[in-house]
Amino acid sequence: MAELLRGAPAASALCERLSGRILALKEAGVTPRLAIVRVGERADDLAYECGALKRCGALGIAVESVVLSADCSQEDLIEAIDGVNADASVHGCLLFRPLPAQLDEEEACERLAPEKDVDGITSASLYGVFSHRRVGFAPCTAEAVLALLEHHGVELSGACVTVIGRSLVIGRPVSLLLQAADATVTMCHTRTRDLAASCAGADVVVVAAGHPGTFGASCAKRTQVVVDVGINWDAERGRLVGDVDAEAVAPLVRALTPVPGGVGSLTTAVLAKHVVEAAERTVV
Amino acid sequence: MAELLRGAPAASALCERLSGRILALKEAGVTPRLAIVRVGERADDLAYECGALKRCGALGIAVESVVLSADCSQEDLIEAIDGVNADASVHGCLLFRPLPAQLDEEEACERLAPEKDVDGITSASLYGVFSHRRVGFAPCTAEAVLALLEHHGVELSGACVTVIGRSLVIGRPVSLLLQAADATVTMCHTRTRDLAASCAGADVVVVAAGHPGTFGASCAKRTQVVVDVGINWDAERGRLVGDVDAEAVAPLVRALTPVPGGVGSLTTAVLAKHVVEAAERTVV
Repeated sequence: MAELLRGAPAASALCERLSGRILALKEAGVTPRLAIVRVGERADDLAYECGALKRCGALGIAVESVVLSADCSQEDLIEAIDGVNADASVHGCLLFRPLPAQLDEEEACERLAPEKDVDGITSASLYGVFSHRRVGFAPCTAEAVLALLEHHGVELSGACVTVIGRSLVIGRPVSLLLQAADATVTMCHTRTRDLAASCAGADVVVVAAGHPGTFGASCAKRTQVVVDVGINWDAERGRLVGDVDAEAVAPLVRALTPVPGGVGSLTTAVLAKHVVEAAERTVV
Repeated sequence: MAELLRGAPAASALCERLSGRILALKEAGVTPRLAIVRVGERADDLAYECGALKRCGALGIAVESVVLSADCSQEDLIEAIDGVNADASVHGCLLFRPLPAQLDEEEACERLAPEKDVDGITSASLYGVFSHRRVGFAPCTAEAVLALLEHHGVELSGACVTVIGRSLVIGRPVSLLLQAADATVTMCHTRTRDLAASCAGADVVVVAAGHPGTFGASCAKRTQVVVDVGINWDAERGRLVGDVDAEAVAPLVRALTPVPGGVGSLTTAVLAKHVVEAAERTVV
């Protein structure tokens, strides 16, 4: 049976390392501060906001929520983002997406100051990921994949990693982050001819396709560490499932991240780390 | 013996398709114009400039060279780039690199207006490549790889492509362009553990490592189309060689691009295409 690679211990370890840095910032007179910009009351957003509040609260990171009504105008949203940009006491900003249909998401994302872009939504942050340069921040979930593997002692340098999914939020950034960590990365997607063949030689498989059952028994090998980035609601079973068919795959692979309790448990800790880094960059 | 995939016929076909578009622009009162900014008299730059002048001249694209002395200051260079940016009659700009050591190359590249960045040197252009969006232009050599494969009827959608090399000029952009063309891409580099294994299942291998002999007989398979992006001077043999050990590999693979005469023969044609596109974007 696969070893279960849980996110919680990785998150605890990461937060422990943060607390000293937060103390040093406070001694320098700086309280790291996150602004959360939320439009409407989507359940997913509220759940994530609650998690971020808890995580940041425990660490001594200040959080303020900027809430707009679901039917707000583009001007309202831009004004809120401009307010965040102008407020020197705010170091990082999380803008929940997707936005309601009447809003121009791309314009809103680009409006955010890259140095406050702690979840990698601006073109500057994504260029930073692509160029391996320290511009903005990587998307939290993409970075959480690497943090989870690192915590559990999975060596990436020289490893063969297959990434399934090519979204701009996870698949593409995680591929480039893994490459920067010296992994040999194979990028798969819906047009991949033979997914099982593309996974056969992989030491690590990152599944971020957004569809349950993307990675099943036919793709599994005893040598693989499988990271499941998917979060899908299974109405039939009345619970969350990932993109991996965990029941079928767990007996066949070396290690597997659970859903829930895997990568998702680590994202708010990475978010906190980015807010601390953003605050540190302002005092250096 | 491998079929030789030459760049010249692909370049001719590309230019033939351009001539109608150039005519249409001229009928609209617009002559596409390229500015070449060159610092000093490096032999590589002069050779490429000569090729670009010939290609553009034959097509009716105007070219002006802005030449600075090898010991120019950063201010001189920035002034030259600002001049290009401000000149509405110039649609595209090629800035030769590497620049002399006294100059800040990154600042110079970022100074160029993205809409005139016909060789993909700005962060905006590279973000466009990463995001699969039409921002700026891809680096010409990276795009030439795809144009050459397309001309010779090599299907990319669903194909397995291995890219060797992860430079920001070729390896990374060509990987993302191939992914956008629906190929399943494996990105290899100096830390790749077993290069032969990473090439074994590939339909296409793009070799852009910058070192002769990177791809030898041990990596070759009968099913592969091998694209050699390398250009190296072999002092012993007194001639140009690629990154592929062509003598050893040619008898073993399906097809191979020659050096010289392969990808390199196509880059000025792609450059011309980008200048025409940049001009078209100004009239739409």
